[in-house]
Amino acid sequence: MELAFQEARKGKSTWLNPLVGAVIVKNQKVIGLGHHETFGHEHAEINALKSLTSISDAKGATLFVTLEPCSHVGKTPPCVQKIFDVGITKVVIGQVDPNPIVSGRGIKYLENHNIQVENLNIKTDLNTAYEFFYREQRPLITIKYAMTLDGKINRDSVKRSLISNHESYLDSQKLRANNQVILIGENTLKLDNPRLTVREEAKLFPPIRAILVRDLKTINKDLKIFQNEAPIWFFTEKQTDQIFPNNVKVLVGNWTPESIITYLAEQKLQSILIEGGSHIQADFMQAKLVDKLIIYLANRVFGTGLSAVSGQTIKGLEFSKPIVKSLDSDLKITVWRKR
Amino acid sequence: MELAFQEARKGKSTWLNPLVGAVIVKNQKVIGLGHHETFGHEHAEINALKSLTSISDAKGATLFVTLEPCSHVGKTPPCVQKIFDVGITKVVIGQVDPNPIVSGRGIKYLENHNIQVENLNIKTDLNTAYEFFYREQRPLITIKYAMTLDGKINRDSVKRSLISNHESYLDSQKLRANNQVILIGENTLKLDNPRLTVREEAKLFPPIRAILVRDLKTINKDLKIFQNEAPIWFFTEKQTDQIFPNNVKVLVGNWTPESIITYLAEQKLQSILIEGGSHIQADFMQAKLVDKLIIYLANRVFGTGLSAVSGQTIKGLEFSKPIVKSLDSDLKITVWRKR
Repeated sequence: MELAFQEARKGKSTWLNPLVGAVIVKNQKVIGLGHHETFGHEHAEINALKSLTSISDAKGATLFVTLEPCSHVGKTPPCVQKIFDVGITKVVIGQVDPNPIVSGRGIKYLENHNIQVENLNIKTDLNTAYEFFYREQRPLITIKYAMTLDGKINRDSVKRSLISNHESYLDSQKLRANNQVILIGENTLKLDNPRLTVREEAKLFPPIRAILVRDLKTINKDLKIFQNEAPIWFFTEKQTDQIFPNNVKVLVGNWTPESIITYLAEQKLQSILIEGGSHIQADFMQAKLVDKLIIYLANRVFGTGLSAVSGQTIKGLEFSKPIVKSLDSDLKITVWRKR
Repeated sequence: MELAFQEARKGKSTWLNPLVGAVIVKNQKVIGLGHHETFGHEHAEINALKSLTSISDAKGATLFVTLEPCSHVGKTPPCVQKIFDVGITKVVIGQVDPNPIVSGRGIKYLENHNIQVENLNIKTDLNTAYEFFYREQRPLITIKYAMTLDGKINRDSVKRSLISNHESYLDSQKLRANNQVILIGENTLKLDNPRLTVREEAKLFPPIRAILVRDLKTINKDLKIFQNEAPIWFFTEKQTDQIFPNNVKVLVGNWTPESIITYLAEQKLQSILIEGGSHIQADFMQAKLVDKLIIYLANRVFGTGLSAVSGQTIKGLEFSKPIVKSLDSDLKITVWRKR
C-alpha cells in the first residue's frame, strides 16, 4: 500500500479528481503499477491493469488501491466493473471515497461480485482539499500573504514592494498550482498587476483567477491578468456592457464572503487560495471562512506601510501550533484553524 | 577547557563582569574548579585555587581559564599575581580579555614571570554583550516585541492586549535578566503599566529600567514601576521639581537614540533591551541602533490594532537568517543585524 501511495503522488493536474495510486500483486510479487495522471485520463486501477505484461495475469491477483474504486460512469467507465471482468479476487483500499456518488458503492459492488475487500482506513494528506470538500460541503480556504518582521505587507499604498525571496516565490507558485481558485481584490489587481498564473506543471488545468471588483469600468484591459488564457471570474456588483476575452466570466451579484464560497462550492471547486489584499483577507476571516493560513515571513523591517489582515476585528478564530519551514532568509509559517 | 566553559555558565548576576570559569589540572587530573559567581565576588581563578585540598597543590599545576586573567586591582586583587604566587607554571586561556584595562596585560604579566601561556582563541557566546561593548564602544541593543500572525502588537490603543503565551513570558523574563537596561517609552509605561522586573535569579543586580518621558508631570506615582526598588532612569526633556523615591534618577536633556546610547555607554552598560512601543523601536532602528531583533510570534490574528515598529521608514538595515525556537503555540524568532 505504501508503494501505491508513492505511485499516487506522481499524479499532476488531477484537477477535480483526487490523486490515486494502484499496485497489483500476485504470488507476493508486484506485477502492475499505475496512478491517475491527469483529469479526464484513465484512473489508477486501469493504468495498473494496462501495465501488466498480459491482462490474463490479473486473474486471481490482489489490487492495492489508495482510494475506493469508482462505481459510476464519469469521464471514464466504472473501475469496479473492469476489476471484476479481469478476475481480480481481492482489493485492499486505503480509504473510502468521500465523494457521495462513490462512497461505499464501490466496495458494495465488489463484494456483491464475490471480490474480497479490505479497507485499511488510512489517514493521509494526499487529497486534503478533496476530502475537506466532501466533508464540509465547501472548498478548503487558504489565506496566504508575505509580510515583514514588523508585520507589513507593503511599504506604501501606491506601488508594490518586494517582500519575500526567490525560494518563497517558488513555494508560492506550488501553492497556487495546488489550488483550484486564486482569489484577490481589485486593489491588489491594480496595485500589484499580477499574472496569477502558475508554472508549467499546472498549465493543463490552471487555477481560476477570481477577482472581486466593484465596478468593471475601472479595470484596465492592459493588466497582465489578461495576457493569459487561464479563466478569469469577475465577482462584481454592477452589470457591464464591456466586452472581455472568452476566458472571462462576469458574475454579477451582491457578493459577500459567504455567497462567494457558496457559489464556488456549487461549481464543485475544492480549494481556494486568497492572496490579498489585507481587507479581503479580514472579511473572510471575520466570516470564519478560513481553514489554513500561510505566511511567508521575510527578514526585513519596513517601519511604515500596510499591515497584514486589516479592517475588521477578528475574534473567535483559534489556530494550531505553527508549522515552520525555512526558505533561505524567509520563514514559511503554516497554521490550521482549529475547528 | 570545555569543563572550564561549563563551569563559567554557572555564574549569575556577574553584572558588568563577564562569565568566567577555571579548572586546575596536575598530573592529568582535575584538582580544582571555580567560576565567577556574582559581581563583586572572587574571580573564577581564585575560586578554583580555593577549591584545592591544599594551596600547595597549585605548585607546578596548569590553570585552564576561559578568559585572560586580570592584571588590575578592581573589586578584587589582580589574579595574575595570585597565580604566580601559588606556583602555577602554565596557563591555558580561552580568549584574550577585550576589556582594554586587561587586554594582553594579563598574558604579558604571566610571561614576564616565566609562566607558560597558551591562548586557544575560542569564539563563544558566553559573553556576547561584554565582547560587543569593548569592540563597538556601546551597549549591544536588542529590540523585542510580541506580535500576532497579522503583525499587530496591540488590539487597540487604550488598553493592553494579551498576545504571547506563558512560555514566551518565561523566555522574555530570561531575556530581561540577561540585559543591563530595559528601555520603554511613556506610552508603553502608561498603557501596559509594566513592572519591568525580573525573576529571582537577577534580583541582586536587576536591570535598570530606562523610561523615555517627555514631561514627568504626566507620570502617575501609582504605576507598578514604583512598587519595586530596581533603579529607574527617566530620560526626559523638562526639569522637574517632583520628588521621586531614591531609586529614581532623572536625566534631563534633548534626548535622541544616539545620545541615549552614548550616555549608557559612558555608564559602562553593555546591553540594552528595547521593549516598546513601536515608535521608539522605529526611532532606534532608523538610527541604525539595533543589533538583534527578537519577536515572539503568537498564533492569533487581530485584524485591527497597532502594528509593530511604526512611524519611521526603515531603510538600509539587513538581517541574518532567522533563528526559530518553538515556544508551545508561539514562535520565538531571532535575527541579528548584518554589519
